[in-house]
Amino acid sequence: MYKLVLLRHGESTWNQENRFTGWTDVGLTEKGIAEAKAAGQLLKAQGFDFDIAYTSMLKRAIKTLWIVLEEMDRMWLPVVNSWRLNERHYGALQGLNKAETAAKFGEEQVKLWRRSYDVRPPALDKNDPRYDVHDPRYANLAPGLYPAAECLKDTVERFLPIWFDSIAPAVKSGKRVLVTAHGNSLRALIKYLDNISDQDIVNLNVPTGQPLVYEFDAELRPLTSYYLGDPEAVAAAQAAVANQGKAKV
Amino acid sequence: MYKLVLLRHGESTWNQENRFTGWTDVGLTEKGIAEAKAAGQLLKAQGFDFDIAYTSMLKRAIKTLWIVLEEMDRMWLPVVNSWRLNERHYGALQGLNKAETAAKFGEEQVKLWRRSYDVRPPALDKNDPRYDVHDPRYANLAPGLYPAAECLKDTVERFLPIWFDSIAPAVKSGKRVLVTAHGNSLRALIKYLDNISDQDIVNLNVPTGQPLVYEFDAELRPLTSYYLGDPEAVAAAQAAVANQGKAKV
Repeated sequence: MYKLVLLRHGESTWNQENRFTGWTDVGLTEKGIAEAKAAGQLLKAQGFDFDIAYTSMLKRAIKTLWIVLEEMDRMWLPVVNSWRLNERHYGALQGLNKAETAAKFGEEQVKLWRRSYDVRPPALDKNDPRYDVHDPRYANLAPGLYPAAECLKDTVERFLPIWFDSIAPAVKSGKRVLVTAHGNSLRALIKYLDNISDQDIVNLNVPTGQPLVYEFDAELRPLTSYYLGDPEAVAAAQAAVANQGKAKV
Repeated sequence: MYKLVLLRHGESTWNQENRFTGWTDVGLTEKGIAEAKAAGQLLKAQGFDFDIAYTSMLKRAIKTLWIVLEEMDRMWLPVVNSWRLNERHYGALQGLNKAETAAKFGEEQVKLWRRSYDVRPPALDKNDPRYDVHDPRYANLAPGLYPAAECLKDTVERFLPIWFDSIAPAVKSGKRVLVTAHGNSLRALIKYLDNISDQDIVNLNVPTGQPLVYEFDAELRPLTSYYLGDPEAVAAAQAAVANQGKAKV
């Protein structure tokens, strides 16, 4: 039986300010650092160990991973950083407050942009300073791959190559893998793993800092999946994510 | 012209306690964390940037690297961890106080163990709990490679393969490389790079937290090398390292 652990980064400064973040590279809050420490301690206490970790190119996920590895005394583990694990690119919404955006465009429109499978948010203009194709961390992307905006379907399509090329083979080879990523890049993977419909994925929320364990059969079909933490804390964290798009929070 | 930056980790808890550390996996002190931050800020202020970093399997070097990468906003850089960059293995001296050892065996004997090229310190007994061949981070070492004690010559011999196989080709390919390692693994590399004699290497000390820049010709022969920081601070840090083996400090 194979296992895989998924972990969304702890609270970031823009989670706290309720802003659309996407590829904006913001850091963790004190609460986010504490969430990452707690996740590392929980994994260690529950006897989890890892051989390799995957994370994104964004510091809120990388820092979460580093804190977990430090808590687990596994700072020496190999780490793969890939843009394919990045958060969904939120296009022209990046930097806007979610509640203000809901007040302006309506909660339903914001829910569509946030949670629908195939409705892209407004694209970044190519002259917008946020369209930072010269960021050196993305210098090796194939031409045209740097996104101006992504719907979840786009995120699934750019995430799955690293699943099939690298993460799944690592799991199948017996490696114990930790993936530390983002709300929507993890929703993209979970949608694939659990074969969730385009409709049902709208209501799936991944809480920050809560290790999510998958157990697979020999073909990497999920046998079961569960959050490792206290169920009430997990439910509260999921509700908090779901409520971010409300006009008044 | 090629460049390479070498950095010894900041002060560790056992540097502070003046103990022989070797492969013992001790963390940084507050001073060590501050040294690492200062090194990252100095590198950034001087316009340095990197494409890849190499470090050891020991947390004092890894943490130093992570702090530098965080200060430089380069947390997403690929990092190669290798036991070949580990500190020299100090054998049965690991854990002993350097001044107490000098008082017991004499300063000259301790200087021989600390700085001579080919005199090994006493070997760890195979039943000693410090002979931790089951540590998972060393699980992939070829049989017989886990050391019971090393002289600097041994460290040179196990360091140079990763220089020739990986670091030097990276530098030659145009990558800007940062190596964050240990006093004696860096002395091993410097001895090779600068073709220092077995006699003269005894008096070479590498200070903690001071970026050391090498500039090479097309064949990776050093044209020049210099510490980036304030010369007086560098000299003071070097003297502090040299004095650790005195009976009274």
